[in-house]
Amino acid sequence: MTRIGVVGVSGRMGKALVEACQNDQQVELTLAVQRTGSSLIGVDVGELAGVGKVGLIVVDNLVEQISQVDVVIDFTRPDFTLANLEICKAHKKPMVIGTTGFSDEEKQQIQQAGNAIPIVLAPNTSVGVNLSLKLLQLVAQVMGDEADIEIVEAHHRHKVDAPSGTALRMGEAVADALGRDLSQCAVYGREGITGERDPQTIGFATVRAGDIVGEHTVMFATEGERLEITHKASSRQTFAKGALRAAKWLQQQPAGFYDMQDVLALN
Amino acid sequence: MTRIGVVGVSGRMGKALVEACQNDQQVELTLAVQRTGSSLIGVDVGELAGVGKVGLIVVDNLVEQISQVDVVIDFTRPDFTLANLEICKAHKKPMVIGTTGFSDEEKQQIQQAGNAIPIVLAPNTSVGVNLSLKLLQLVAQVMGDEADIEIVEAHHRHKVDAPSGTALRMGEAVADALGRDLSQCAVYGREGITGERDPQTIGFATVRAGDIVGEHTVMFATEGERLEITHKASSRQTFAKGALRAAKWLQQQPAGFYDMQDVLALN
Amino acid sequence: MTRIGVVGVSGRMGKALVEACQNDQQVELTLAVQRTGSSLIGVDVGELAGVGKVGLIVVDNLVEQISQVDVVIDFTRPDFTLANLEICKAHKKPMVIGTTGFSDEEKQQIQQAGNAIPIVLAPNTSVGVNLSLKLLQLVAQVMGDEADIEIVEAHHRHKVDAPSGTALRMGEAVADALGRDLSQCAVYGREGITGERDPQTIGFATVRAGDIVGEHTVMFATEGERLEITHKASSRQTFAKGALRAAKWLQQQPAGFYDMQDVLALN
Amino acid sequence: MTRIGVVGVSGRMGKALVEACQNDQQVELTLAVQRTGSSLIGVDVGELAGVGKVGLIVVDNLVEQISQVDVVIDFTRPDFTLANLEICKAHKKPMVIGTTGFSDEEKQQIQQAGNAIPIVLAPNTSVGVNLSLKLLQLVAQVMGDEADIEIVEAHHRHKVDAPSGTALRMGEAVADALGRDLSQCAVYGREGITGERDPQTIGFATVRAGDIVGEHTVMFATEGERLEITHKASSRQTFAKGALRAAKWLQQQPAGFYDMQDVLALN
Repeated sequence: MTRIGVVGVSGRMGKALVEACQNDQQVELTLAVQRTGSSLIGVDVGELAGVGKVGLIVVDNLVEQISQVDVVIDFTRPDFTLANLEICKAHKKPMVIGTTGFSDEEKQQIQQAGNAIPIVLAPNTSVGVNLSLKLLQLVAQVMGDEADIEIVEAHHRHKVDAPSGTALRMGEAVADALGRDLSQCAVYGREGITGERDPQTIGFATVRAGDIVGEHTVMFATEGERLEITHKASSRQTFAKGALRAAKWLQQQPAGFYDMQDVLALN
Repeated sequence: MTRIGVVGVSGRMGKALVEACQNDQQVELTLAVQRTGSSLIGVDVGELAGVGKVGLIVVDNLVEQISQVDVVIDFTRPDFTLANLEICKAHKKPMVIGTTGFSDEEKQQIQQAGNAIPIVLAPNTSVGVNLSLKLLQLVAQVMGDEADIEIVEAHHRHKVDAPSGTALRMGEAVADALGRDLSQCAVYGREGITGERDPQTIGFATVRAGDIVGEHTVMFATEGERLEITHKASSRQTFAKGALRAAKWLQQQPAGFYDMQDVLALN
Repeated sequence: MTRIGVVGVSGRMGKALVEACQNDQQVELTLAVQRTGSSLIGVDVGELAGVGKVGLIVVDNLVEQISQVDVVIDFTRPDFTLANLEICKAHKKPMVIGTTGFSDEEKQQIQQAGNAIPIVLAPNTSVGVNLSLKLLQLVAQVMGDEADIEIVEAHHRHKVDAPSGTALRMGEAVADALGRDLSQCAVYGREGITGERDPQTIGFATVRAGDIVGEHTVMFATEGERLEITHKASSRQTFAKGALRAAKWLQQQPAGFYDMQDVLALN
Repeated sequence: MTRIGVVGVSGRMGKALVEACQNDQQVELTLAVQRTGSSLIGVDVGELAGVGKVGLIVVDNLVEQISQVDVVIDFTRPDFTLANLEICKAHKKPMVIGTTGFSDEEKQQIQQAGNAIPIVLAPNTSVGVNLSLKLLQLVAQVMGDEADIEIVEAHHRHKVDAPSGTALRMGEAVADALGRDLSQCAVYGREGITGERDPQTIGFATVRAGDIVGEHTVMFATEGERLEITHKASSRQTFAKGALRAAKWLQQQPAGFYDMQDVLALN
C-alpha cells in the first residue's frame, strides 16, 4: 500500500487524482493539500472530487502532515511545485511531478533534487503515450527506411495549437531513431501540385473537431502493408493512473531523477 | 442481358472493364475495340486482360460490329471519345463515358448528343463515391450547422496533387448543402498557434503513404458525438462495376444526358 | 426561446439536460423537478448538475409551476413518466419522452395522448444515431444487394448485453430496406471452419473494452470498394442535445405522436 | 547484391517474388524454376509475372544452375520444398522457406538441415506482422494486466476459417506475455446477456466482407486510454518483400535454423 499526498486537489488533475486513488486498491490517499487561502480548506476531498465523502479533509499545508505520506504527487504550477519540492527534500519524500511550464533553469533545479530524493518528472504521465514512443522507435528501426511515415492527430475544437505536443514528440521519436532532423523533414500540410511524396519526409495531418480528447495515429506504409500505432485518450484518468503507477514505482527506488520511460522499464 | 462494347481495351480501365464483364452475369462483352494500328488487334481480349481466353478478338473499329452491342463504354481520351460519340449517335447506341479532361465546349457537345441518344457522363463511376456525395448532403442538412466538418483523405506515395479531386468534391457537396463557399471556408493545413477552430471552416487533412488506393473520411463532430462517412477504394473494379451498372440502367432509358446520380436514383 | 421543464434532474440524464440547457442560447430551463421526498428539493439545479449556480431551485412538483414551461422533457421511469404525461395532457404541454422500458400497453397509452398534445417518444434521442438509421436505409437500397454488410460495435467493459440495442436497430434498418429478416440473417460470431461468407447474412462483431462510450460502424463492402457509416458517442450530451432539438421542434407542432425521424425531417 | 533463385515461379507467390526482385536494387533474380513438365518451361519469367521481359528463362531444374544463386526462396508445397532442401544442402546454399503445411516430422527435418546451411522457415514472411508480434509482447508486459484486450480482424468474403491464423498468433503472443492460456481465455463471439467483461479474457471479433486482403487490430483499453496496434496487408508484395529481406540477411549468416524474428533482430 502506497500512501499518497496530492497537492492542488481542486484543479482538474487534482480531482482526477483523487478519483484514481479511490479506484486503486494499492494506494491510499492520506493527504490532500490546497493553497493557503482557498475556500475549500476543510471540505471533504471526495465530495470535492465528485466521488462521495471519503473522510479526508483538505488542508492548506504539505509540511505538517507529510509524515503520513509515502509519495507526493504534484500537478500544479512551477512556483508552487518548486516550493513543495523543498519540503519533500527536507523530509526525504519521493515526488511525482506532472507540472509543466518549467524554465530550463528550474528543470535543472529539479534534476539536482534527484540527488536527495527519488523524483519522476513527466510532462505527460499517460502510460499509453509513453509506451507508444517506445513502440515507434522500434518500428522505425525495423521498417522506417522503406516506409512512408505519417502522423494523424485529432483534438477538440478548442485546442489552439497544431500539431499537438504529443504528435511532435512522436515525430521526434521516429526522426531520432532514423537519424533524421524533424525540423528538416516535417510536412504540416499539402495543397495543390505537391509532386510525388519525398520518402525522407514525415507528414503531419491535423483534425480539430467536436470534443475529441486526443487521438494520435502513426502510420508506417510500404508497398504491400501498413503498420499503425494508435493512441486514444478518453479522460484525464489516463494521466492520473499513470501518475499513481509512477508513485508506486518510485516508492521502491533510491534517490534519482527519473522519467516515465524509467517507470515503465522501457529505457 | 446487356451486350457491352468496350473501347480502349488495352488501357488499365479497359482491362478492368473486361474483367468486370466476366464477373457479371447480366452483361456480355460482345465488342472490344482498340485504336487502329495497335499491335494488339487480333488477340483474345480475355488473355489481354489477364482473365483467360474468352473467345472475343480485339478489333480496330467500333462501327463495323456496332450492331452487336447494346451499350458502348468508353474510358479513353477526349478526341477518341468524341469520334466514338459520333458513331454512337449515327447508330443510336447508348454510351457510358468515363473519359476525363474534356473542355467546357466538348462537354457541351456531349450534352447535346443527349438529345439523340442516352448518355451517362461520369468522371468517377464509383457507386460508393457517388452515393457518399448524397449521404454528405443529407448529413450536412441535419447536423452541419452545429458540427465541425473535417475531411481526411489518404492516397499512395505517387499521387502528385492534394487534396484529391474526390475530397474536394465531397467538400463542395457539404459546402453547397450549407450555403458556404468552399474556396472561402476550406483549411488545408494547420501549424503553430492557430487559435480555436472557426466553426464555419471545413478542414482537409491529407495522408500520402505506401500503396493506398484511395480512402476518404468526412467527419461531422459535435459536443457529444461524431458521425463519419468513409469510402475506401481497393481496386479499379470499383469504377468498372459502376460503369456496368450505368450501362445496364442506360439501356432502359430514353435519349438524355445523365450522370451517376441519375443512374443510382439519387436525384 | 423555448422554456424547458426537466423532470428527474438528479439522474445522470437529468444533469446532462441541465448542462445542455446552459449551453443552448435558444432554450431556457425554467422548471426542475425531482420526486417528492428527495433531499435535493430546494438546492440550486446548476450546482446539482456541476455547472455552477443558475438561480433555479429544484421543486418536487410538476403541476404547480407548469405554466412557466413550453415543453417538458422526461428521462425517468415508466410509472413516473406516465404520471407526468397526465399532467402535461391536462395543461396542454408538449412532452419529449426519453424514458425506456415501457410495456406495449403503456406505449399505446402514450400514443393516444398524442391526440391531445404533441409528443416525441424516443428511446435514443441522439441526432447522429437517428440520422445514421436513415443513411443506412439509403446505402442498403443502392449497394445492399451486392455488398457484404457487417456491423462492428464497441462499448465499455461494464456493458452486460451484446450486440448493443443500437447495433440491432441498425441491422434491422438495413434488413428492412433489403427485405430480409434480421432474425434469419444475423451472424453473431465466427469460429473455426465457417466456409465462405453467405452474401445474404448480416454480420455483427462486438468489442467490449475500457471506457468506450459507444461506437458503431456499418460496413458495405464489394469487390473494389467499401462504404462505412460510423457513429461515435462521447458523452451523454449527445442525448441531451437531441432532446432539446426535439423540444424546440415540438413547440411548433400540432398535437401528434412523433419520433426522432420526424424531428429531423427524415420521414 | 544478392543473387536469388525462386522455385515455383508460376504460382501467385512466385510471381509476386519475381516482381519484388525487379523492384529491389539489392537483389538480382538469376534462377527461375518450375516443376518438370510445366508448359511454362522456356518462357521469359518477367512476362510470366506480368512485369515485362527480363531476359531470364524458366527452367525445370534447381540443381544445374544452382551455382548462379546465393539464396533460394521456396513458397511451394511440402514435398517439393523438401526435395529442394536436399539440393540446397548438397550445394551449401541458404534457403528461405515460406511453404506451409509441414508435418511436425517434416519441420524437424528442416530444423536439422539448419546444421548444414542457413535456413529461414517462416509461415508468414510479412515484416509488419512479425514486428507486430514483438510490439504486442511489449504492450502486454506494460499494460496487459489492467487493460481489456480485444482483437478485431477483417478478411475477404472467400476466407473459410475464423479467426485468421494471424489473429490467433497475435492472441497467443499476448497470452504468452501475460502467462495466460489462449485456449482458456479466448472469446470468439458475444450474443445476448453476457454479463460484464471478464478482465482475463481476450476477445476476438471477425469481419468477412468484400475483397479485404487482411486487417488486424489489437486493442488494449483501460479506464482513460486505448492503445491499438493495427496491421493492414494490401497485396502479396508484403510477403515477397519480407522474403527478400530474409534472403539478404541469410546470405550473411552461418548455418542455422532461423525465423523472421531473427531476420528482424527482434529476438
